[in-house]
Amino acid sequence: MTPSSLNQLIEALRVLPGVGPKSATRMAYHLLQRDQGGAVNLAHALEYAIATLRHCKHCNTFTEAEVCDICADAQRDHSKLCVVEMPTDLMMVEQTLAFHGLYFVLMGRLSPLDGIGPKDIALERLLQRASDGEVEEVVLATNFTVEGEATAHYLSEMLRARGLSVSRIARGLPVGGELEHVDPSTLAQAMVERRSL
Amino acid sequence: MTPSSLNQLIEALRVLPGVGPKSATRMAYHLLQRDQGGAVNLAHALEYAIATLRHCKHCNTFTEAEVCDICADAQRDHSKLCVVEMPTDLMMVEQTLAFHGLYFVLMGRLSPLDGIGPKDIALERLLQRASDGEVEEVVLATNFTVEGEATAHYLSEMLRARGLSVSRIARGLPVGGELEHVDPSTLAQAMVERRSL
Ligand SMILES: [Zn+2]
Ligand SMILES: [Zn+2]
Repeated sequence: MTPSSLNQLIEALRVLPGVGPKSATRMAYHLLQRDQGGAVNLAHALEYAIATLRHCKHCNTFTEAEVCDICADAQRDHSKLCVVEMPTDLMMVEQTLAFHGLYFVLMGRLSPLDGIGPKDIALERLLQRASDGEVEEVVLATNFTVEGEATAHYLSEMLRARGLSVSRIARGLPVGGELEHVDPSTLAQAMVERRSL
Repeated sequence: MTPSSLNQLIEALRVLPGVGPKSATRMAYHLLQRDQGGAVNLAHALEYAIATLRHCKHCNTFTEAEVCDICADAQRDHSKLCVVEMPTDLMMVEQTLAFHGLYFVLMGRLSPLDGIGPKDIALERLLQRASDGEVEEVVLATNFTVEGEATAHYLSEMLRARGLSVSRIARGLPVGGELEHVDPSTLAQAMVERRSL
């Protein structure tokens, strides 16, 4: 009884994280009834983002160019590499002004329960990147969640096996805390107090 | 620092009801990183739905044809018109098998606090539809929420002023209840016990 194009839209909305059948239905009706302009705009933004965004070939963050602005900045300290889970985390660290090196964005974390293993995050590329001869210290700034800690532990083993000096931002963050939700001064403190692993 | 196409996507996702800046960001990363196929599919589904769906010229529900399947069905009782808020509610009433008339879908409810007045729901079209000479009884099946009750009260005044017989599905639903969340047998009972207004 529901028109197929409406059913298709409801199904398609379910690719969004946290959106089940009821909220997908509510979203579809809202867009069709109250914001068709917003819906068309969303369709274009999706297609444009998919078409233009790629991963920075150095740090793996999203960028429209081959190399992102930070990696292209010759003023940065090329001997330090800060590893974060997501681009949002990179921006949080940048805001602290406590780190002047370069970044590597994993685009995820190890999470065996969700089926996310070493092959699903950019681990191989990180190991290559860290072994370029210029990087002297890798600062692990993954979240202090169970998955983030496990990821840091795993990375630390792999990086030290390659003779790299590895540090972890200080446990100044609350247990279970995520970088995205912490105030910049606490994060700055954690950066300054990073400990060698 | 965030690429503009990524920012545009995050902004565009915020047209979805209940989606703030944080969850829009999470959705954008999820789509770009883990489900580009789903994102492209969503874009196409949005464009296809906007292009193909329109309102049934009789009952105002979403349809791909000029007239929806129910309105086109000559077997239905044309003397009874059941008014619901949303297409989901229409489907809930259909499932009860307790109503064999036709429908009118308001696509909303009166909600002064949200700025939704008589002009924002399909009130004029309902009045025209109910005054076609064939309709003898209008069954109001809006939700038993504050807005749904106010809408039923308002519609009842307007319809009775036009000499139409108006009924309300029985208050068998719990106070504050919504049709979408009730079991079919309770809703069937409420339909059978509708009272004249
Ligand atoms: Zn980069
Ligand atoms: Zn219809």
